[in-house]
Amino acid sequence: MAASRQESKPSPERIFNTMVAFQETEALKAAIELDIFTAIAEGANTAKSLAAKTGASERGMRILCDYFTVKQFLTKKTNQYSLTEESATFLNRHSPACLGSMIDFLASPWSRKNFGALAEAVRQGGTASETGDHRKAHEEVWVNFARSMAPLTIPAAEFIAGLTGAAEAKPSKVLDIAAGHGMYGITVARRNPRAEIVAVDWPAVLEVAKENAKKFGVAERYTARPGSAFEVEFGNEYDFVLLTNIFHHFDPPTCEKLMRRVHQALDPAGKAITLEFVPNEDRVSPPMAAAFSLVMLAGTDQGDAYTFAQYEKMLGNAGFAKTTLHPIPDVPQQVLISEK
Amino acid sequence: MAASRQESKPSPERIFNTMVAFQETEALKAAIELDIFTAIAEGANTAKSLAAKTGASERGMRILCDYFTVKQFLTKKTNQYSLTEESATFLNRHSPACLGSMIDFLASPWSRKNFGALAEAVRQGGTASETGDHRKAHEEVWVNFARSMAPLTIPAAEFIAGLTGAAEAKPSKVLDIAAGHGMYGITVARRNPRAEIVAVDWPAVLEVAKENAKKFGVAERYTARPGSAFEVEFGNEYDFVLLTNIFHHFDPPTCEKLMRRVHQALDPAGKAITLEFVPNEDRVSPPMAAAFSLVMLAGTDQGDAYTFAQYEKMLGNAGFAKTTLHPIPDVPQQVLISEK
Repeated sequence: MAASRQESKPSPERIFNTMVAFQETEALKAAIELDIFTAIAEGANTAKSLAAKTGASERGMRILCDYFTVKQFLTKKTNQYSLTEESATFLNRHSPACLGSMIDFLASPWSRKNFGALAEAVRQGGTASETGDHRKAHEEVWVNFARSMAPLTIPAAEFIAGLTGAAEAKPSKVLDIAAGHGMYGITVARRNPRAEIVAVDWPAVLEVAKENAKKFGVAERYTARPGSAFEVEFGNEYDFVLLTNIFHHFDPPTCEKLMRRVHQALDPAGKAITLEFVPNEDRVSPPMAAAFSLVMLAGTDQGDAYTFAQYEKMLGNAGFAKTTLHPIPDVPQQVLISEK
Repeated sequence: MAASRQESKPSPERIFNTMVAFQETEALKAAIELDIFTAIAEGANTAKSLAAKTGASERGMRILCDYFTVKQFLTKKTNQYSLTEESATFLNRHSPACLGSMIDFLASPWSRKNFGALAEAVRQGGTASETGDHRKAHEEVWVNFARSMAPLTIPAAEFIAGLTGAAEAKPSKVLDIAAGHGMYGITVARRNPRAEIVAVDWPAVLEVAKENAKKFGVAERYTARPGSAFEVEFGNEYDFVLLTNIFHHFDPPTCEKLMRRVHQALDPAGKAITLEFVPNEDRVSPPMAAAFSLVMLAGTDQGDAYTFAQYEKMLGNAGFAKTTLHPIPDVPQQVLISEK
């Protein structure tokens, strides 16, 4: 393969790199497991000192750190490695924005198995895995999600808290459906001391959300309502219902079924707040939202990344009068606000 | 994660993309298995016609082709997909430069298993797999290599054929060690009608090389010598010994042992021609050569990508008087020419 791409002549380099892209995931997984970014932040900056600190071999550490220098997550100067701004912010466990835990979900055996059968999923038009119906509980998957994925919620959760009028501290009844780690509802509760959160998810998942509610000091305003979002009694007169990353798991009729239940649970002046990957009508932009369809093909029976027109139609069918779309700065997902 | 990177503020996008990089490998594997790039080259250019042609679902095909549009291996215009110059050249099976087969080796279960235990390899300083000693036969691995990896040899094999004076058609005895698919020696034989090739590799691997020798019309000048490169009788008075992608599997003493055997087998005026990933002294550039060390850490007990200074020393210890380094246009590997 060519060492560099030229305008005049196609190079096989990018195809080669895609064929071995799994190596990048494995390298990052190993580096997070050995916690080398934190070790460098703490001052161990040679292969030798990193090996001593992490209980690894000097040779293995040299090769791994050289690799991450090539991949620009580290810099190297006369055998001393340093963090980049990116790795210092997102891969050092002392950083509040550390994303390290996310690899446990994003590259979990479950996700790999789904993607390992992708050709079959393309043939069938839905996952080849037996866990593709997400109306059913797959608690092991979602407890892993809840334990791993909280770091990514920060900017979107703050944005949503803003939408719920948290700053004005109005009394608010908030229903958080498929709460997972609970961080969306918990952030609303942290920002609005008069907000009461009711969280719905599978029982074992809600244990994680309750831990987080306690950790962030909002446990006394946090109620867990375990069960299926399609069956559990939601209660009613909610000011806000949060629907973060749930609709993409289902086909449109199933989404509409859930949307109708949400419509019923809302106060007449209440709003449904949906956080989703929303590709443009071309379905190939913006990149992260559009590419997310493939994750749903690999892992669900009928899930998808829906366009705004598709959401407008589904939410309209479920009784909502008006839905608007709101981009979130620095986040690939968008918020839909639906009024009754 | 941020939808775009900014100078002023680090974005988690690249880290997120690394965590899910395995999805890119799986998507390309599925696309090659379903042969969508060839199907598009043959005129099926909508999700519907591609589904019909490949026996897949329209929904799955739409999502897969949208994904490859996002990844810029396809373009999309009002639901019609087209190949890019890159995918037309390297992923369409009608193209002589098609690389599709390579995924069978590069993303093989063996390679994935090696990388799946990378943290342990870093701890140990060598692969956690039981197939790390490449002095031993691992025929299943290398038959897969021989069947998959021939496409990538073309520019380097032509370059090496040039170095052996193929154009002048001088009688040449050429020993091809760890021949694999055989394409380096076979290319020399194709370019020089008076070259005689002796190929060394494990028995089942040489069957593939012999098939290729026959396919390219040089079988009558192609002799297979099955066995270990450390034990089999090479013969002597060779004009050239080809050592393509072999030394990186071993530690320096083992490399030197093989180099001494090569030195003995060469005519006094003969040359050893080594094709290798040769990183610079900093060991973090150029990218592909430097990153190759990690592949060796993951898959071998003691292999590595050696610098030119390391090769000079090993080849000198083995008796070679002089070694020179030669970059190959558009190829990430380099050639070393060693004289007795």
